[in-house]
Amino acid sequence: MRRLKATISYDGTLFAGYQVQPGERTVQLELENVLTKMHKGEKVKITASGRTDARVHATGQVIHFDTTLTIPVDRYKKALNVQLPRDIRVLAVEEVAADFHARYSVSGKQYRYIWNCEEQQSPFRRHYSVETNGLKPNVEDMQAAANYIVGTHDFSCFCAANTSVVDKVRTVQSLSFSWQGEELHMVIEGNGFLYNMVRIIAGTLWEVGIGKREVKDLEGIVASMDRGRAGKTAPAHGLYLEKVFY
Amino acid sequence: MRRLKATISYDGTLFAGYQVQPGERTVQLELENVLTKMHKGEKVKITASGRTDARVHATGQVIHFDTTLTIPVDRYKKALNVQLPRDIRVLAVEEVAADFHARYSVSGKQYRYIWNCEEQQSPFRRHYSVETNGLKPNVEDMQAAANYIVGTHDFSCFCAANTSVVDKVRTVQSLSFSWQGEELHMVIEGNGFLYNMVRIIAGTLWEVGIGKREVKDLEGIVASMDRGRAGKTAPAHGLYLEKVFY
Repeated sequence: MRRLKATISYDGTLFAGYQVQPGERTVQLELENVLTKMHKGEKVKITASGRTDARVHATGQVIHFDTTLTIPVDRYKKALNVQLPRDIRVLAVEEVAADFHARYSVSGKQYRYIWNCEEQQSPFRRHYSVETNGLKPNVEDMQAAANYIVGTHDFSCFCAANTSVVDKVRTVQSLSFSWQGEELHMVIEGNGFLYNMVRIIAGTLWEVGIGKREVKDLEGIVASMDRGRAGKTAPAHGLYLEKVFY
Repeated sequence: MRRLKATISYDGTLFAGYQVQPGERTVQLELENVLTKMHKGEKVKITASGRTDARVHATGQVIHFDTTLTIPVDRYKKALNVQLPRDIRVLAVEEVAADFHARYSVSGKQYRYIWNCEEQQSPFRRHYSVETNGLKPNVEDMQAAANYIVGTHDFSCFCAANTSVVDKVRTVQSLSFSWQGEELHMVIEGNGFLYNMVRIIAGTLWEVGIGKREVKDLEGIVASMDRGRAGKTAPAHGLYLEKVFY
């Protein structure tokens, strides 16, 4: 029995999210179906670094699973990609130690959030960036507000209410903005993220960018530990899980 | 009554093509439905520069229609975009002379064809570029072969059999290749194109690029006027109608 780690990319548009849910098309279901077929019907369970919601994308999600097959890891990647639907691709497969765990061994993650600020959002970007109807935010203000978020804080203010997590202290190592053409990208790296945390941060900083909130409001929002003080949860389809660090 | 010219972009993925067909979702149907609603049920017929097939994209298709509404043209664009599905966007609307005709006034067109040569095609590109399973063609050979196509020829060899067009002489003004990251783009401009002509050219030059045909074979293919001598029709979803010239 070997433990394999796989890095995968998926277009979240047509998935009800990463995790298996009865009656829904999910990334985990598609992967487990293919692996189970490769193992001649023996059920193979995979573990991811964490779940992603419906319509959220991934360019660097990480999973692990145990396999009895002895095929070389590079052949493994090809065998998976041949059978997987085209909206999931396996980017890399490597053998790891038996104590590697895709979720518990995580030391950090990086997410990206994309707003499309074209006057008419290109039809080709409608599932991959959030339309702003041509609104162009003040990015200097967004970056200044972001600096109240970087660091170690209790991030209860940026955590969706329906969560069972008790300790909400996390460290955000970096949070920065850049333009790629008419699209604004936010890249955030941290040692861990609460449920909906990146989307609530994106939604709150966007409100700063369009002048609905002051830069310095962020200090009070973080200190309040009150979800009701932060902004709206930004839409799922602008979000990408980009890297998982171990 | 004013005649309006509109430049539109659409993601061809979920359309059965441009032209209205019974029981199918088409670009023309969506546009006419919105225009007819704006005209309080009075049927508005639109005319395009030409049809595009199922899954073919457009970044610069042109249409015309006549309207009794007196709203300014910039407001017209917004009114259309608010009601259209997100996979069609109106990029520009302008008033034109009553004798402008989106199809008969065309002086030329530009198309783009995109191959994705990543080892694993990104899931985000699966509808917007043609997967080559990591094959990287010899672009110098493709360009050399393309030079037998540029110019004025009877292009019967690059015309799908099921066409009623009699005169198959057209002029290709330019045909060039460029890399954008790991994607190969072919851009072709001509005074007119026969049915499937760009896709058959793309398929034939691809076969040169991967060594299935010789560069100089193109001379004989063009001279033969025989569709059977040319290569396969390249898939629809790699094709973009980019510009229409008047």
